[in-house]
Amino acid sequence: MAETLAIKADFERFDEWTEAFRPGNLELVHWDDLKAGQPLDYALVWYPEPGALHRHPGLKIIFSVGAGLDHLVGENILPPGIPVVRMVETALTLGMAEYVVYHVLRHHRFMPQYEQFQRDRAWEEILQIPANQRTVGILGMGVLGTACAQALMPFGFSIIGWSRTEKRLEGVEHYHGADQLDRMISRCDYLVCLLPYTRATRHILRREHLRHLPEGAVLINVGRGGLQVEDDLIEMLDSGHLGAAVLDVFEKEPLPPDNPLWSHPRVTITPHVASMTLPETSARHVLANIERCRAGLPLTHVADMARGY
Amino acid sequence: MAETLAIKADFERFDEWTEAFRPGNLELVHWDDLKAGQPLDYALVWYPEPGALHRHPGLKIIFSVGAGLDHLVGENILPPGIPVVRMVETALTLGMAEYVVYHVLRHHRFMPQYEQFQRDRAWEEILQIPANQRTVGILGMGVLGTACAQALMPFGFSIIGWSRTEKRLEGVEHYHGADQLDRMISRCDYLVCLLPYTRATRHILRREHLRHLPEGAVLINVGRGGLQVEDDLIEMLDSGHLGAAVLDVFEKEPLPPDNPLWSHPRVTITPHVASMTLPETSARHVLANIERCRAGLPLTHVADMARGY
Repeated sequence: MAETLAIKADFERFDEWTEAFRPGNLELVHWDDLKAGQPLDYALVWYPEPGALHRHPGLKIIFSVGAGLDHLVGENILPPGIPVVRMVETALTLGMAEYVVYHVLRHHRFMPQYEQFQRDRAWEEILQIPANQRTVGILGMGVLGTACAQALMPFGFSIIGWSRTEKRLEGVEHYHGADQLDRMISRCDYLVCLLPYTRATRHILRREHLRHLPEGAVLINVGRGGLQVEDDLIEMLDSGHLGAAVLDVFEKEPLPPDNPLWSHPRVTITPHVASMTLPETSARHVLANIERCRAGLPLTHVADMARGY
Repeated sequence: MAETLAIKADFERFDEWTEAFRPGNLELVHWDDLKAGQPLDYALVWYPEPGALHRHPGLKIIFSVGAGLDHLVGENILPPGIPVVRMVETALTLGMAEYVVYHVLRHHRFMPQYEQFQRDRAWEEILQIPANQRTVGILGMGVLGTACAQALMPFGFSIIGWSRTEKRLEGVEHYHGADQLDRMISRCDYLVCLLPYTRATRHILRREHLRHLPEGAVLINVGRGGLQVEDDLIEMLDSGHLGAAVLDVFEKEPLPPDNPLWSHPRVTITPHVASMTLPETSARHVLANIERCRAGLPLTHVADMARGY
């Protein structure tokens, strides 16, 4: 009998998911169609409700639809002892690199100013600064941070990285640990945040740290909204210390219509779309792990829920 | 006695040029300070006036400040028999790759739509299309076209190229010659024009060819304004056949304030700044060729003025 995989995510694309999982010899079930107590082998989930994953015996692996795991944190969300696997897939990684490179280039090449010149019908030139005179700092050098660093490198930017523990990546100058955070931030013309949202990183993008940025630096937060203190950002944008902010994530999502960030002239807002999971490539990652499970091999990209990523 | 290099270009940065040429053991002269009949060894020029280069005996090499040579075309501009060397330098090449990657990503990632959503305070998601389902076509596969192709590749775009004569570049599907132009154009979601401006390429971006573009394609012209027929572009933008146009060059520059392109909602205008020559890196290229000349070695990047590039 085929094993069962239940999906609780992105129901608009459920047909695409079904198609993507076809090679897996699995019985696919839409979460809402599950019967009470129905046994399950695998679950692919996004924000499961408390207790929901406990109701189905036989669960071998819980797959997260997103790269982050914060949607799995909370009381009674995860049944104990079942491995959680993070989403690591090409489309998600490439999409993040596209988004970050785009926004770094946008500011590096003065595009907001040129758009203003166009509105003013002004033929005006701004002397270009070579990329090797600009420093991009990346907070969080996991799979996504590394991909962004590698995508930025060919343009010649100086890349520096920061993470909780020491890491190495050729071509990136690395900082680590709370002690080195402000020193790293003080060097960034562009600060890209790709940290996981954990108790340790909550509100890390606050004035206390951001005040170390060089005057006019640009913040790009593509991690989670809980990493930033929006009141601090607005104050620092208004004072001019922060040259611009590109925000894909917010303390409250969807961003409420009356939030002042929407109309701030130096804020770019996108609705948590910096990177999207693609059914085709995600299914490949999930199926590869299911194969490993069937063969008794260790799983890949297993989350450490105590650490939070 | 030191040889003499006269500079007719970018006088705002004359000090930077002087500094950049310091290692060359040359006497540097500002063009306007030249005396009538003063002997010259080398000239670095942008739009020299007719007869100007003929007035100074001893000239061994004419260096173009730009990658294009159209500013050297015309009656009595170039004294016969003196080699012309094109500008090929890192800053120019990297700058072009930045500009092209930025604008391709901008449209690939629906950024103009997201900017509209922000103005409307609308939290709305557009399903992302993976880069490997998009084709970028590059007209002109010289130094700059090749650099753009290589900068786009890591993102996963399908890259096709077209040039006058057959060329090869790993990872790029190549078309060549007038016969294959429309077939190449018919495949492009993004059409990037980096052709030199010659008698053969004048007005190549006209309806006759552009009508082969897929509906909604985006044109990016970073070559020369004379390559495009602006009336055709406006008509094709208005009909929706052309999804957007990114224009850094124009039939008449500066673009006159009353030109309708300024305010077209699907046109992006920049004032011929896609890429700029940087004194430091340009001087390196010029000095390397002066060294070769002194050593009796063949020069690099010598222009074929009959061909026009």
